[in-house]
Amino acid sequence: MSTTATGGELADVVSCAEAGGWSPRVVRWPRHSLVVVAPHADGARFSGMAGVARVVGSPGPHFLAARDFRPGSTVVDVGGHVVGAGTFTVIAGPCAVESREQLAAVVPVVASAGAVLMRGGAFKPRSSPYSFQGLGVEGLRLMAEQRRLTGLPIVTEVLRPEDVGLVAEYADMLQIGTRNMQNFPLLQEVGRCGRPVLLKRGMSATVQEWLLAAEYVLVHGNPNVVLCERGIRTFEPSSRFTLDLTAVPVVKRMSHLPVIVDPSHAAGQAYVVAPMTLAAAAVGADGVMIDVHSDPENALCDGGQAVTPPEFKQLMVDLARVLAATRRAVT
Amino acid sequence: MSTTATGGELADVVSCAEAGGWSPRVVRWPRHSLVVVAPHADGARFSGMAGVARVVGSPGPHFLAARDFRPGSTVVDVGGHVVGAGTFTVIAGPCAVESREQLAAVVPVVASAGAVLMRGGAFKPRSSPYSFQGLGVEGLRLMAEQRRLTGLPIVTEVLRPEDVGLVAEYADMLQIGTRNMQNFPLLQEVGRCGRPVLLKRGMSATVQEWLLAAEYVLVHGNPNVVLCERGIRTFEPSSRFTLDLTAVPVVKRMSHLPVIVDPSHAAGQAYVVAPMTLAAAAVGADGVMIDVHSDPENALCDGGQAVTPPEFKQLMVDLARVLAATRRAVT
Amino acid sequence: MSTTATGGELADVVSCAEAGGWSPRVVRWPRHSLVVVAPHADGARFSGMAGVARVVGSPGPHFLAARDFRPGSTVVDVGGHVVGAGTFTVIAGPCAVESREQLAAVVPVVASAGAVLMRGGAFKPRSSPYSFQGLGVEGLRLMAEQRRLTGLPIVTEVLRPEDVGLVAEYADMLQIGTRNMQNFPLLQEVGRCGRPVLLKRGMSATVQEWLLAAEYVLVHGNPNVVLCERGIRTFEPSSRFTLDLTAVPVVKRMSHLPVIVDPSHAAGQAYVVAPMTLAAAAVGADGVMIDVHSDPENALCDGGQAVTPPEFKQLMVDLARVLAATRRAVT
Amino acid sequence: MSTTATGGELADVVSCAEAGGWSPRVVRWPRHSLVVVAPHADGARFSGMAGVARVVGSPGPHFLAARDFRPGSTVVDVGGHVVGAGTFTVIAGPCAVESREQLAAVVPVVASAGAVLMRGGAFKPRSSPYSFQGLGVEGLRLMAEQRRLTGLPIVTEVLRPEDVGLVAEYADMLQIGTRNMQNFPLLQEVGRCGRPVLLKRGMSATVQEWLLAAEYVLVHGNPNVVLCERGIRTFEPSSRFTLDLTAVPVVKRMSHLPVIVDPSHAAGQAYVVAPMTLAAAAVGADGVMIDVHSDPENALCDGGQAVTPPEFKQLMVDLARVLAATRRAVT
Repeated sequence: MSTTATGGELADVVSCAEAGGWSPRVVRWPRHSLVVVAPHADGARFSGMAGVARVVGSPGPHFLAARDFRPGSTVVDVGGHVVGAGTFTVIAGPCAVESREQLAAVVPVVASAGAVLMRGGAFKPRSSPYSFQGLGVEGLRLMAEQRRLTGLPIVTEVLRPEDVGLVAEYADMLQIGTRNMQNFPLLQEVGRCGRPVLLKRGMSATVQEWLLAAEYVLVHGNPNVVLCERGIRTFEPSSRFTLDLTAVPVVKRMSHLPVIVDPSHAAGQAYVVAPMTLAAAAVGADGVMIDVHSDPENALCDGGQAVTPPEFKQLMVDLARVLAATRRAVT
Repeated sequence: MSTTATGGELADVVSCAEAGGWSPRVVRWPRHSLVVVAPHADGARFSGMAGVARVVGSPGPHFLAARDFRPGSTVVDVGGHVVGAGTFTVIAGPCAVESREQLAAVVPVVASAGAVLMRGGAFKPRSSPYSFQGLGVEGLRLMAEQRRLTGLPIVTEVLRPEDVGLVAEYADMLQIGTRNMQNFPLLQEVGRCGRPVLLKRGMSATVQEWLLAAEYVLVHGNPNVVLCERGIRTFEPSSRFTLDLTAVPVVKRMSHLPVIVDPSHAAGQAYVVAPMTLAAAAVGADGVMIDVHSDPENALCDGGQAVTPPEFKQLMVDLARVLAATRRAVT
Repeated sequence: MSTTATGGELADVVSCAEAGGWSPRVVRWPRHSLVVVAPHADGARFSGMAGVARVVGSPGPHFLAARDFRPGSTVVDVGGHVVGAGTFTVIAGPCAVESREQLAAVVPVVASAGAVLMRGGAFKPRSSPYSFQGLGVEGLRLMAEQRRLTGLPIVTEVLRPEDVGLVAEYADMLQIGTRNMQNFPLLQEVGRCGRPVLLKRGMSATVQEWLLAAEYVLVHGNPNVVLCERGIRTFEPSSRFTLDLTAVPVVKRMSHLPVIVDPSHAAGQAYVVAPMTLAAAAVGADGVMIDVHSDPENALCDGGQAVTPPEFKQLMVDLARVLAATRRAVT
Repeated sequence: MSTTATGGELADVVSCAEAGGWSPRVVRWPRHSLVVVAPHADGARFSGMAGVARVVGSPGPHFLAARDFRPGSTVVDVGGHVVGAGTFTVIAGPCAVESREQLAAVVPVVASAGAVLMRGGAFKPRSSPYSFQGLGVEGLRLMAEQRRLTGLPIVTEVLRPEDVGLVAEYADMLQIGTRNMQNFPLLQEVGRCGRPVLLKRGMSATVQEWLLAAEYVLVHGNPNVVLCERGIRTFEPSSRFTLDLTAVPVVKRMSHLPVIVDPSHAAGQAYVVAPMTLAAAAVGADGVMIDVHSDPENALCDGGQAVTPPEFKQLMVDLARVLAATRRAVT
C-alpha cells in the first residue's frame, strides 16, 4: 500500500483478496502497510486499486525478504548509525558482559579504533547449565553506562519472548542468536517490537531457512532486519564452525537485507579472526561483529576467540585498506 | 541426599561445599534433593555427612544425565505408561492436529494396533510464517477428547516458556522439538514443571550437547526426561535428515536416560518409516514415535512422511516379531 | 539384446542408434550384450528389431544400476556363495592381514560361527604414509591358505588399476574402498575384470553418486556389483562416521543391486558393532561385513573397532534371532 | 642431511636410527636427503653426526608438511613462475579442454589479463560414465600449443598412476583432484615424479588429512607441493560446495606449504566466483584457480561456474586493488 493509503483502501484490498480466496495477511510497517496474499493470486486484480503502490510477485517461499520485493537494498538505522547502503559496520565488544571494569577496558578502545556499535551479552545461551549465564539486567545497565560514555549504540541478545520489552529498553538492536533462529515465538515478538533485529544464521540452517526466519520478523511488523553469518556446522574440527562466506553473495542475490559476518564465533580461535574479517570485507559483507576482551584467558565466555584491544586496533588498520580497495570505508 | 534427609542436613552439605569454594547448586527432585558441586570438589569431604545417600563423580561435562550418576536406567511414567526399563513404547498419531474427524480417523486405530501414547501437534514450529501453525488450545482439547475415548496419554510439543503451564494442563508429556533443543529458557521452564519431557535431538547437535540440554531439565528439578533421536543434518538429499541410529548405543553408554527414535521426521518419506522402525527396535531403542495420517496427501503438515492406518497396523505386526527376537514386546 | 542375439543383430541396433544420433554404447556382459543410448532416444524404434530382448528407459542419470533396468533384484555369486535374493551374507575377518597366526586365530572361528565370506586387507589405504600399508601379495597368499582350510571365499581391496589382475588371481570378490569410490580408472578396470565387486560408498557420496560409481563398473562389462554402506562424514564426533542405514531402503527403491552394511568402519568403536549389525539386519540389508581380531589392542590397523572371536560368536546368535524375525537366515 | 652430506654419512644416520629401533625412512629430495624417524626417537642422538644439517621434531602426525619442519615457507617453481613467497598466482583456463578454438578463445585473453599459469583438463574425472571424459593426450597437445603461443605454463590433472609420466611430459604442474586426494598410489607416483604438484583438498577431508596426503607426496621425494582449497561438502544447497576460507589461515599455521583457492568448483555458479576470489586474496591465500570459458552455456563440463573472458578481465582489475591493500600484487 502507498504511504498515504487510507484504512478504507486497505480494507478494500483485503476484501478483494478474500473474494479471490487468497488468504490476505496485513503487515503493518512503520511507514506503510502491506498485504501478503497467496502465491497463486492474480496480481493484476490489485494493481489498479486505490492506495496500492506496487504489486510484487515472488518466485520463492519468502516474499518480504525476497530480492524482488524491494528494488534497492534495505538500510537499517541502529541508534543513529546506518547499516547497509554501501557502508561497512564494525560491531565490537566482549562476548559476555562481566563487570564495569571489563567493559571499560574494551568499549572506549574499540570506539576510538573505529567500531560504531557495541556488542555485549547480558543474557547468554550456554550449552551447559553450569556455565556463566550472563549478568542479566545488570549487564544491560553496564552497557547503557558505556553508551553514555562512548556514544556507541548497543547490540545485545534476547532469549525469551517475554524479555523482549525489557531488553529493548536498553538495546538499540536486538540480537537473535544462532540457537534461536527458529525460535518462532521469539521471532514474532521481536517482529512486533520497534527495535532493529540482528538475525544470526542457525548453525545448520540453509540460506533459504534463514531468509524464512527473517520473513517471520518482517511479517510481524518489523522491516529492520540485518542478517549475520556466523559459521555452519561441518565435519572440520580445526575451527568451531565453518564460516560460509559464500552465503554473503548468495544472500545479496536472494534478498535486499543487509548481511554482516561474525568471524569470532565461527573461528573459536583468535588468530583466525583478522584474516576472516578482511575476507568478509572483500566478499562484500555490510559489516562484521568481533569479540574483544582485554584478558581473553580469564574471559567467562568463549575467551579463545577474543582478540585483544591492541590486536583489534591493528585489525582496523588492515581493514581500512581492504575496504578502500572495494571503494568503501568503516562508517 | 537420601529421601529422608532433613532441611538442616541439606543446609550442612551446602555450607560444606561453600566452604570449599565449590559453588553448590541444590536440585529438588520429587523424591529427594541433590547437591551439584564444582567438578574438582573433594567428594570424600561429603561422603560421611548426615543425610548424604551417595557421592558420585562425573568424567564429563554432564552430571545428572551421566551414566555414572544412576547405576540402573531411568524409567519415566507417562500417564501410567512406563518408558524405559526394557519396554518398547510406540507413540503414534498425526504430525499436526487438524480436526476432530482427522484425530478420530487415526487415534483409535493406532490404539487398537498397539500404540500406547498419542502424539499430535497443537503448536507447530514451521519454517515459513505462511505455513499452518497448529490449532493451539483447540488442538489440545481435541486430543484430550481422544484420550477419554481411547485411554492413550498425550505427547505434544510446547514452544514458549509461558505456555508450559497451559500445555501441561492437557499433556501427559511435553515435547521439546529439534529447533528448541537449545532454547534454554524453555528447557528451564519444563524443568520446573512436573510433567515428563520428551527431548528431541537438535538437528545439528552432538550427543554431548543433547545430554547437556537434558541436564538443563534435570538440574531445574525434573528427573523425567526421555531423549528422542530424529535425524541430523548432512549432505545427503535422499532423506530429509540422516537418522543417526548409532546415537542409541552411544547414549545408552553415556547416560541412564531412555532414548526413543522418530523415523518419520528423519525420513520425510513414508516408505522409509517401516524399515527404520524395525532398525530402531533392533538397535535397542526404548521406543518409536510415528506420524500416522489417514489422508497423507491432504495433510496440513509433513504429509509425505505419514504412514496410513493400514500401513501402521502392518508395521506393528512386523515390529512385534523383531522385538520378540530381542526379547522385548510392545508394551 | 537377447542371450542368443548374433553379432549382426547387435551391429544393426548400433547402426540404428547411430542413425538417430543417439551415441550408442555397447556393454558386453557375460551372458548377453546391452546397448546404452542417449536418454532422449526413441525406444520404440528398437523394440521390434531382431535380437532385441527388451527396451528399458530410466528416469534418472543411471541406467544399468536403476531399479527399472531389472524387474527382479541382482544376485551375485561370490566363489559359490550367493549375495542378494533374500539371503543375508556375513563377511568377517581382520581389517588388515598381519600374519599367518593372526588369520588362523580368526578365520576358522568366524567360519564355524556362520560367516560365509572372509575379509582381510592386503593392500591398505592409510591416511598417513607412516602407517602400516599391508603385507601386499604375501597377505593375499595367506588368505588363500585360509580359504583352502575353511572354504571361505576371499573379499579383499584393490587400490591400483594395474593391480586388478594380480589381486583377482587370489580374490573371489574385489573391494573398492570408500576413498576410491570415485577413482574412475580403477572402477573401469574392475569393470573389465570378471570378478564380483564390493563397492563401498564414498564417505561423502550421495546415494546417487554411489549408484553412478556402480554404473561405471556395470557399463565396463561387469554386472556383479554389491554395494556397501560404511558410514558418512558428519559433524558428530562420538562415532568415526555416521552409519546411514536409511540408505538401505533408499538404494533398494532406486536400484536392483544388493546392498550390505559395514558397521565396523563406521563406528570406530567395538561396542557399537553388535547393535548396528542387528539394525542392519532389521532394516533389510543383504548382509554385513565385520572386523574381527583376536587381539584388538595390538592390531596394526583400526583395532578399536574390531570385535573379538567370542564377541562375534555371540553376535551371530543374536543376529540369527533378528533375521528369523524378518524371515531370513544367515546363509 | 646437509646438501653436501655423503652417502656414507647418510648410511651412518640410518644405522644409528636402526640401532635405536626408530624405523628410519630415507627421503631423497632434489637438493638433499632427509631421514624420517619414529616420533619418539631421541633427536639429540643425531644432532652431532656428520652430514646432519638439522634435527626437527613434530607435534603432530605429519613431519615434512609441518610448520616446524621449515622455518620459512615453501616456494614452488612452476615452469619459471614462483608460487608462494608473498606472490599471488592466478591460474586460469577452461575446466576441460574441448578444442583448439575453445582454448584459443580463452588462454591468450587470460594471459593478457594477468593469469600466469594455464589450467585445462585433458583427463576428466566425471561422476557419470556417460559424461565427457576429456580429450586425453590430444588435450595435452592443445595446451602445449597454447603454452608456445602465450608462454603460460600448464597445470593439468592426472588420474592414473601409470599416466603420471605421460602427463608430466606436457604439464608443468600435476593436479591431484579432490576425488583423488586419498588415492595413495597416485600420490606416491607424483611423489616420485619431478613435477610440482597441485593437491586439491578432498571434499570431505579435514585439514589434517589433507596435510597427510601432502606428506605422501613429500615423503616419496617431491618437495614441491601447493595445496588448493576447493570447497567441502555440507548441507547447504545454494552452492555446490562450501568454500572453507578459514582453512587458509589454518594451513598457514600448521604447514609451510603454499595454499591457493579454487572458487569456481566450490561455487558451481559464476556470480559467486568474483567475490570469493577477492575474499581469497584478502584472507591471505597464495593464489586462485579460476574456470574461464568463452561460451559457458555450451561448455562440455561445469559450464555453470565458468566466468567469461570479459568477466575475468574485470575480476583481475578488482583483484589488483585488494592485493595492493594487502601489499601484494598479481605476479
